[in-house]
Amino acid sequence: MLQGKQSWRFDSPPVILGYASVVGPEEGKGPLKNEFDLIHEDMRLGQKSWELAEQQFLEQAITRAVEKSGIDQNAVNVYVGGDLMNQITSTSFVARTVGLPYLGVFGACSTSMESLAVAAQLISSGAAHYAIAGTCSHNCTAEKQFRYPTEYGSQKPPTAQFTVTGGGASVLGASGSGPRIKGATIGKIVDMGIKDPFNMGAAMAPAAVDTITRHLQDFQLEPSYYDLIITGDLAEIGHSLARDLFAENQVPIDQTVFSDCGLLIFDREKQQVQAGGSGCGCCATVTYGHLLNRMNRGELKRILVVATGALLSPLSYQQGESIPCIAHAVAIEAEGGGN
Amino acid sequence: MLQGKQSWRFDSPPVILGYASVVGPEEGKGPLKNEFDLIHEDMRLGQKSWELAEQQFLEQAITRAVEKSGIDQNAVNVYVGGDLMNQITSTSFVARTVGLPYLGVFGACSTSMESLAVAAQLISSGAAHYAIAGTCSHNCTAEKQFRYPTEYGSQKPPTAQFTVTGGGASVLGASGSGPRIKGATIGKIVDMGIKDPFNMGAAMAPAAVDTITRHLQDFQLEPSYYDLIITGDLAEIGHSLARDLFAENQVPIDQTVFSDCGLLIFDREKQQVQAGGSGCGCCATVTYGHLLNRMNRGELKRILVVATGALLSPLSYQQGESIPCIAHAVAIEAEGGGN
Repeated sequence: MLQGKQSWRFDSPPVILGYASVVGPEEGKGPLKNEFDLIHEDMRLGQKSWELAEQQFLEQAITRAVEKSGIDQNAVNVYVGGDLMNQITSTSFVARTVGLPYLGVFGACSTSMESLAVAAQLISSGAAHYAIAGTCSHNCTAEKQFRYPTEYGSQKPPTAQFTVTGGGASVLGASGSGPRIKGATIGKIVDMGIKDPFNMGAAMAPAAVDTITRHLQDFQLEPSYYDLIITGDLAEIGHSLARDLFAENQVPIDQTVFSDCGLLIFDREKQQVQAGGSGCGCCATVTYGHLLNRMNRGELKRILVVATGALLSPLSYQQGESIPCIAHAVAIEAEGGGN
Repeated sequence: MLQGKQSWRFDSPPVILGYASVVGPEEGKGPLKNEFDLIHEDMRLGQKSWELAEQQFLEQAITRAVEKSGIDQNAVNVYVGGDLMNQITSTSFVARTVGLPYLGVFGACSTSMESLAVAAQLISSGAAHYAIAGTCSHNCTAEKQFRYPTEYGSQKPPTAQFTVTGGGASVLGASGSGPRIKGATIGKIVDMGIKDPFNMGAAMAPAAVDTITRHLQDFQLEPSYYDLIITGDLAEIGHSLARDLFAENQVPIDQTVFSDCGLLIFDREKQQVQAGGSGCGCCATVTYGHLLNRMNRGELKRILVVATGALLSPLSYQQGESIPCIAHAVAIEAEGGGN
């Protein structure tokens, strides 16, 4: 049901029956290395191209999430997903293998929560008994598509971000055991005129703040309702800017509960990731690993995951356009943790 | 509500309160010229790039659809859309102007009905009071992105299709006067191994047949239930192949009620469009013009619009991959025409 102006309240909260994340070598060296289902040392996964490897990360995450859910994959009614590749081919090619009715979605790196929100909405409204949400990204495919040929090894400014290599997926059902999706807030485009694709965190921060603020208003909640409010991939520059914007707007978000997947997944002291992680796979692998694991360990009861997306293309950037940004938020509560 | 395995039944059918289509010069010379809201003679619409012009087609269609709906645009809860451009920038840039919560979706040319199905589902389930669905394409932007530099003027084989220049949009509400959306069927990927991007109709035909067959099974309907079953952009080759496949599968579709938007929008005898029209704008401008006009004129009571999409990218094609295809179907009934 519509809640406020731009949020959905799930009166029958869909249950996350299974989830999984599969990552690459750099993510496997990071602080969350024990939270992933599978870490691959080979960026190619034995495939002839990085694009095929990216598909493997997503496909393996979906397979594992389905296994862990205990559901027969054929009982799933819809797969909702998308990715950063032109024409979201990574996801569409995986949808071919998965063999389920397929809704392709795109919100750049916000796709992780857009797909989860849509899948949850379909379950909650009875349009699906079971649904899969899953997204992916790959450092080498994103690098060559959005920036320079990967082998060129161009230097980057410290404001740049490092695209996560990995896939994350979840299986949702109407009932069962697991964390529950209580609601979602669908973001509006926010564009503050930033044109630098090497500073996407700064471009996306106002969109994250806008969606979080709207979420709290729509549900009439204080930020302290959540144990954790976590953005997708603002990384160092964007997250710091978001903190400043909340302070400026006098939104009382306790700094200890405000975090970012792009900051958690890498150790910026030891890993060459500039401002931090990014990509559809960033928020997806952290959520469908670390965050849900923490809920299942009883460490978190209520979280708000706010995936951020920079909706540029290399062409729009080259044509001198600024970067429209968006953020979609999904509220997840541990079993028995809500209400 | 889930109907069968992969369809949605809308027990409270969303109403199409307003719709509009805005097209370019070639479409304005075609057989449907009297069915569009606006025909532009200038492919650039006075913009400095074709990409900006493409956005204008969509933006104008949305503006007119909203005007015709009589709804205040600020009362709309969500805009659902997508397009063929990399990272669906046309739609995302329009979403910035429109200023509404935004769900980006992508199914290549099937995006027109994917967006309508999702928007209808959100209305039907109470997640939105009002929603906009809208998509676009532009011959020159698609040509340069998917094939060759537009100015190069490369010759095409007769199996190729001509991307429609235009935008189409509709405004949906939970009640009011207008055609009603009774249900939708979400397609699965079908890939018969075709690798030729100049023969997308043939690649997409099996997906259209699969979705139509599944739709009829899920709703336990005979094809004769519909006055018109119309595919998005199979064009000459694909549509002929779909007819053959139905005959082979012994699905009794009367050939007089089976049509294709890509065949209707151009006069292949007089216009140089090879096998016929294609692009997100093809099914969108024909549906949000000709088809709904015919319903409102009382000429059609029940139609099934089956938008088809070829989910390739230039990169996937260059890497030797085949073309995964999909089709999404939306069932629309005239006011007082259903049940």
